[in-house]
Amino acid sequence: MEVFFLRIEMYSHNAKRMKSSIIRELLKNTMQPGMVSFGGGAPDPETFPSKELAEISQEVIKNEYKTCLQYGTTEGDKLLREEYLKLLKEHDNISGLDLENIMIVAGSQSSLDLISKVFLDHDSIYFISKPAYLGAASAFSIFSRNNEDLLLKEDGMDLDTLERRLEEIKQKGELLKVKFVYVVPNFHNPAGVTLSLEKRKRLLSICEKYDILVVEDDPYGSLRYNGEAIPSLFELGTYNRVLLLKTFSKVLSPGMRLGFIIGREDVVHSLVRAKQSTDLCTSSLTQRIAARFLQKHDIYESINNTIKIYRRKKDIMLEELEEQFKDLPMTWTKPEGGLFIWATLPEKFDTHEMLDIALKHGVIYIPGDAFSINNGCNNSMRLSFCLPPEDDIVEGVKRLKKAVLEYGHEKGLL
Amino acid sequence: MEVFFLRIEMYSHNAKRMKSSIIRELLKNTMQPGMVSFGGGAPDPETFPSKELAEISQEVIKNEYKTCLQYGTTEGDKLLREEYLKLLKEHDNISGLDLENIMIVAGSQSSLDLISKVFLDHDSIYFISKPAYLGAASAFSIFSRNNEDLLLKEDGMDLDTLERRLEEIKQKGELLKVKFVYVVPNFHNPAGVTLSLEKRKRLLSICEKYDILVVEDDPYGSLRYNGEAIPSLFELGTYNRVLLLKTFSKVLSPGMRLGFIIGREDVVHSLVRAKQSTDLCTSSLTQRIAARFLQKHDIYESINNTIKIYRRKKDIMLEELEEQFKDLPMTWTKPEGGLFIWATLPEKFDTHEMLDIALKHGVIYIPGDAFSINNGCNNSMRLSFCLPPEDDIVEGVKRLKKAVLEYGHEKGLL
Repeated sequence: MEVFFLRIEMYSHNAKRMKSSIIRELLKNTMQPGMVSFGGGAPDPETFPSKELAEISQEVIKNEYKTCLQYGTTEGDKLLREEYLKLLKEHDNISGLDLENIMIVAGSQSSLDLISKVFLDHDSIYFISKPAYLGAASAFSIFSRNNEDLLLKEDGMDLDTLERRLEEIKQKGELLKVKFVYVVPNFHNPAGVTLSLEKRKRLLSICEKYDILVVEDDPYGSLRYNGEAIPSLFELGTYNRVLLLKTFSKVLSPGMRLGFIIGREDVVHSLVRAKQSTDLCTSSLTQRIAARFLQKHDIYESINNTIKIYRRKKDIMLEELEEQFKDLPMTWTKPEGGLFIWATLPEKFDTHEMLDIALKHGVIYIPGDAFSINNGCNNSMRLSFCLPPEDDIVEGVKRLKKAVLEYGHEKGLL
Repeated sequence: MEVFFLRIEMYSHNAKRMKSSIIRELLKNTMQPGMVSFGGGAPDPETFPSKELAEISQEVIKNEYKTCLQYGTTEGDKLLREEYLKLLKEHDNISGLDLENIMIVAGSQSSLDLISKVFLDHDSIYFISKPAYLGAASAFSIFSRNNEDLLLKEDGMDLDTLERRLEEIKQKGELLKVKFVYVVPNFHNPAGVTLSLEKRKRLLSICEKYDILVVEDDPYGSLRYNGEAIPSLFELGTYNRVLLLKTFSKVLSPGMRLGFIIGREDVVHSLVRAKQSTDLCTSSLTQRIAARFLQKHDIYESINNTIKIYRRKKDIMLEELEEQFKDLPMTWTKPEGGLFIWATLPEKFDTHEMLDIALKHGVIYIPGDAFSINNGCNNSMRLSFCLPPEDDIVEGVKRLKKAVLEYGHEKGLL
């Protein structure tokens, strides 16, 4: 067979820059027998209401095949949008919306792609936290690499820097280039921290002042294990300034690929147009199964069960970290929800370099530099507690200690 | 509630240009009672193997929930890729491929978006037929609007123009900007025509000579009602030069959103990287249902049944066109497969303008200008025979005649 060399010019500038995510590469290691993985953010399959979904799927295909096996509208199944608006009203204190304010997408990653298409030119500026949710960073960077980083603190991103940078950009006459602030307000991935109420209000008032949008990505909001829920930016700011992204991936099933964008009508319409040329429509089948599930069952019953499972796992990981690392110079966040703990070692530690030793000891984490768009976070790591069984969490933290000790001594850091 | 005006600068250049597809707008009219629609390209739901899928979906969720409700790999379900490679071998005479040569996407529209991301910069050149498949035109145009049109003839696109333009572009020293020729070789949407074997070979040799890729989009290939199958460009050219796009939307279920990209390993890997930041992965649930369906049933049994249904509908439409339009100056293509007939009236007819009259008479078609990227095709229209019941096809063609007569007389064209 004749083989030709594909000239590099053939690829777009974007493709030349695209790298396979380090997370994805790492996760290949999770398949090794005996390995404890704190790596992925995949939910525990025991949280999926599989019995109910199995039954509903059969009914839906049998009785509604003309709809659920057919093309759907780009904005999404009307029934599911209606049901989701009810959930928002009952559980998120968000009301006053109609069907034009909500669209359904094939998972939240797709929301980020569509938002990029609709708002970002190659010189557009957007603000994102450091560490950043990598899925967002990679979606945005296909359209613009003009990101501004805001350091994450215990109570969320650094708003002093936001305000200072916006003022500087305004002085340079480039304010029109600024499109949005991207924020994961609850139980941040990877950092586990939550944006405080005070900062939520301040963020909104800054965005008001400089006339920019807020993209509020909230995959974990309903997975709160301790403390009081904080109103969403969307609720505080009204839907005029905020685009709210929700997903069923952490509370129903990621395999169904269902996400939601909630926002002002004109923006939702633009996003629907972008979706037409991106993937036409979301699966009518998974949408209708989800809609019937919401009609027949209380999803919050399933979520409450999920919360119990994850709260226990989170507590076990925190307790074991406390136990194993009490005499070692490592700090970590104590999330009130979500799936992730962010651990930080002294500055000269390089968690990426340390990973080989961790793998040798049989434990996987995601090194911090994976969450840094340009560079940094080298001495941190993301630990996910959602997938491993409880015993494995204890064992994994012990292995992590061994890795830290071995690396630290080898490098003369301990 | 405070409302602010979203400044137009907020939107990207792309978003400002995006228009809702005329097809989508038109299809809203199909809901009117009594309307006969030749508009959409949605399959007849009676062709869906719904009984089998209902049963399989329940089994899959019950027995494989840990996989089918979980995140999947970006490249797609291994089982489904294996099964699809078998189909390609048995029915498309395509062998010698392995799992690295195939990826699964959420429907063919997604393939077009990913290909755009991986190959198109804003000044990249690509060739596309006129009339064009609109989904492709809209996906490509987000990344580059530098399209070159090739007129469609009875035996496929005009390759003389392709060769002449490539030579001119080469003389200008801009050949490196040319990325691919996009071609729908079988039963073109909207034109219904098929690229002849001779032209397939010539297209490949031209692309060889100028070192560019071929994107072969083949959603209808297995829906052949008459005549002999022609080898695919992929088969003729080997996978080094051709990216082959396939889909289950016309032969299994569009609501499951399953498409396939088949090509050389390095390109597939690039497309997988692009998919990571676009939608992460395709639904594990619909993929696994499809994989188990392929293992348990002969999909070609279902396709053969589909062929019978559509062949009859196509013949009925052609016969009725012959009957009603024998004394009128309209011509139309006689497709050997697929879902569409392309009818053309004398030059001064404007099918877009005529549409109001057609709607008044209770029939919908898609006006030709909807398939023209810049302009043209104003006197043509796309007639789809797949969805309406047989009686409606007869009635719809009669109504179409009334519309043509009324418009033609009103404008003094008949």
